[in-house]
Amino acid sequence: MLTRIDHVGIACHDLAEKIEFYQSVFGLVVVSQEVHADQGVREAMLHVADGPAGSSYVQLLEPLRSDTPVGKFLARRGEGLHHVGYGVPDITAALAAIGARGVRLLDERPRHGSMGASIAFLHPKDVGGVLTELVQAP
Amino acid sequence: MLTRIDHVGIACHDLAEKIEFYQSVFGLVVVSQEVHADQGVREAMLHVADGPAGSSYVQLLEPLRSDTPVGKFLARRGEGLHHVGYGVPDITAALAAIGARGVRLLDERPRHGSMGASIAFLHPKDVGGVLTELVQAP
Repeated sequence: MLTRIDHVGIACHDLAEKIEFYQSVFGLVVVSQEVHADQGVREAMLHVADGPAGSSYVQLLEPLRSDTPVGKFLARRGEGLHHVGYGVPDITAALAAIGARGVRLLDERPRHGSMGASIAFLHPKDVGGVLTELVQAP
Repeated sequence: MLTRIDHVGIACHDLAEKIEFYQSVFGLVVVSQEVHADQGVREAMLHVADGPAGSSYVQLLEPLRSDTPVGKFLARRGEGLHHVGYGVPDITAALAAIGARGVRLLDERPRHGSMGASIAFLHPKDVGGVLTELVQAP
């Protein structure tokens, strides 16, 4: 069902500063920068690797406001790992299968994610405290 | 410098229970189970994907005691994402380059990690709150 680690999502206070850090220290390259008003985030995708099922990224997330999910995360826990996204070939089928196992879906239906992907989040309380995202690349 | 997301490390209270969860819900397969007394953890590696630079895994971590790093993490933050490990082709060269950028190294020299890899951790305070591991596959 899971074909790759699509990305790790990292919450930060200052997106531009963190982009500069990951570029200069790790040599990563930004391939996309987007604002998702519905999620309340400004984000950058930095390319790590290509693989047979798609690419892997570091996703840096800066909240648009303090009353957004990422804003609340930063207030509660500080900067750091926020979620992990796994690639799936068919997100609708994956959501149905995972929901049938009793895992609550934060998104019952896929919605638009980074770089044209279809995404959906699973409830972290049902995945051992891990905010888990499914990603079907476009 | 980074060739892949080698793994996401997930802290849990009950390794056997979480293995069963990741197997039954996500279809992942355990490829290794090890005890690392020096790190105070019992762990399992679950295979996610293969790629040109190596494979990617979910690493489940159960502390051997409450006074270990993962035990303290669980007491402070509960179950969830603990760290991310990136593949590097030459860990000694990577540590030198990253250290030269002012990032403190928790391991000045590589040590033995899962499945025969050489690993080293970077100080999370210098990586935006992310406990970051470098992994050179054997």
